[in-house]
Amino acid sequence: MAQKIGRQTYRIEKPVYVKNAASVVGPREKAGPLGKYFEEWEDEDFGEDTWEKGESRFVGAALTSLLTKENVSSDAIDCVLSGDLENQCTASSCGLKNSNIPYFGVFGACSTMGESLALGSLLVDGGGFHNVICMTSSNFCAAEKQFRFPMELGGQKPPTAQCTVTGAGAILLTDTVCKTRVTHVTPGIIENYQIKDANNMGAAMAPACASTVKAHFTDTGRTAADYDLIVTGDLGILGSTLFREIMDIHGYPVSNHKDCGELIFDPHTQDTFSGGSGCGCSAVVLASYILREMNQGRWNRVLFVATGALMSPVSVKQGDPILGIAHGVVLENG
Amino acid sequence: MAQKIGRQTYRIEKPVYVKNAASVVGPREKAGPLGKYFEEWEDEDFGEDTWEKGESRFVGAALTSLLTKENVSSDAIDCVLSGDLENQCTASSCGLKNSNIPYFGVFGACSTMGESLALGSLLVDGGGFHNVICMTSSNFCAAEKQFRFPMELGGQKPPTAQCTVTGAGAILLTDTVCKTRVTHVTPGIIENYQIKDANNMGAAMAPACASTVKAHFTDTGRTAADYDLIVTGDLGILGSTLFREIMDIHGYPVSNHKDCGELIFDPHTQDTFSGGSGCGCSAVVLASYILREMNQGRWNRVLFVATGALMSPVSVKQGDPILGIAHGVVLENG
Repeated sequence: MAQKIGRQTYRIEKPVYVKNAASVVGPREKAGPLGKYFEEWEDEDFGEDTWEKGESRFVGAALTSLLTKENVSSDAIDCVLSGDLENQCTASSCGLKNSNIPYFGVFGACSTMGESLALGSLLVDGGGFHNVICMTSSNFCAAEKQFRFPMELGGQKPPTAQCTVTGAGAILLTDTVCKTRVTHVTPGIIENYQIKDANNMGAAMAPACASTVKAHFTDTGRTAADYDLIVTGDLGILGSTLFREIMDIHGYPVSNHKDCGELIFDPHTQDTFSGGSGCGCSAVVLASYILREMNQGRWNRVLFVATGALMSPVSVKQGDPILGIAHGVVLENG
Repeated sequence: MAQKIGRQTYRIEKPVYVKNAASVVGPREKAGPLGKYFEEWEDEDFGEDTWEKGESRFVGAALTSLLTKENVSSDAIDCVLSGDLENQCTASSCGLKNSNIPYFGVFGACSTMGESLALGSLLVDGGGFHNVICMTSSNFCAAEKQFRFPMELGGQKPPTAQCTVTGAGAILLTDTVCKTRVTHVTPGIIENYQIKDANNMGAAMAPACASTVKAHFTDTGRTAADYDLIVTGDLGILGSTLFREIMDIHGYPVSNHKDCGELIFDPHTQDTFSGGSGCGCSAVVLASYILREMNQGRWNRVLFVATGALMSPVSVKQGDPILGIAHGVVLENG
């Protein structure tokens, strides 16, 4: 059973392992610096007549890919935790409508992969749940249409803007022994730094990311030196700089930091402004690059912190600040 | 630690208790048949200049009410699980932005109270989490504006339509001994009966409700006779009739059934069509009427099944079916 350490962190006592992972990305992600790690890719619309239906197909494809890799049917899965950026999380519900797996919908904006992994780990640790799938998705065109302007308008963006990742990532957690374990989770607290610019999500999420990482260090007595890698997502280039600055100011320098939003695109050749964003960003980077490299021993202890901007177009138009949240999960080999 | 029974049900082994509950409702709910059970009420806009900001205030007020009743600060709460019907669940995130409590956003449409209670119970059962708040909200005017037409248009409704409840309900779960325990949870599977009429949510949710209740009976070996009350929400008048018909056909008659959507309004005097709906419906009925009457011994074993229609205006306009889901939780005295 999980042990609470400090205010926000839980040590996972019963072994909870990452059994397998799958991701399906869009063409820009496949063409980016991590392209070789993405086994499957599809066009943004996945052959459907709307972006939203396309995003649902990414969700379904990531689930199918994971079940196929494991050669199991849906009956072997105790539950799936999923959510996304579409209104009322319809990409997840429509994408999983034929899954026949008990379903918990979650919403943490772009922190959803951290939230689903944290809750999934706690469910497996708690007993009863033996195989849990944690997943999320996003779609560039669906997100532009919903949060900014329809693609057809050809809207311009400032350099602080981020580029929503198209893709879905899914991770299977289990209580049987595998190489990589979940050892701690640090659920986040909502942070409000009064950021109101919907084209600067990095600034809204960086303080929340710093808050969760600081809480994790305080609760566990660890520092960045205890990790081979601290990987955040999706702060982007600007948000990552802010995050490291905040951590420096608070006396917790993080030199071993990478951000999924910085890793997934090449801003010089791909016109991706401040980098990748969207729930799918940290999900597909974790489910492919990070876990593959951990499996090959490049990193043995990783702090994964998914970051989310809790807002809607309505809340922004009504003058509400863009709230930030970040959920941390420790992955460890051996 | 939780024990899995059958495909979908988990027996809560470590005692998980309902410590306290709070609800804040709107004027129509206060004027309805359960009015005397609602201690606090406010106008739909809660004095704010938009319905959405008003709904956030209901969320914040329900949390404050619960903490005040318990005379504890937010530091005593390990986490809060909340979600709502607004796009990107902003009522929950804005309403809890100053809470300083680790936050898991959940989305189960109107099944959210069942989902947050199920996950909250599993977290407390799993150890580490000692005090968890499960909550949700809805707002009639915000929901009309988002899902149907702005209030100012004075849109007409067919008799199958339901009336979104204005209110927020919050329940505090704990591992210290109290009167009412959570003994089982049965997470739901998404059901797709190809319902496409957004004014007939009862028809979309009834099969999902029947699916979860049948799974619960199959998994536990129980029947309706093992319960003093089976309370669903928010099927409404039409959905409840359909639910009971489906259960009859499958050989599981449920004579001891009530529905939160039927209970909360008087359709003859309140013009509420097929009854109440919205996440807040089952939340405020459970947090006030059901728990109060259980505490007074009127019912000792209750199966609470919150029902949700997983859809968005976009998914409906694109021709996607309205998916149903229902999450069950068993509450028991002694």
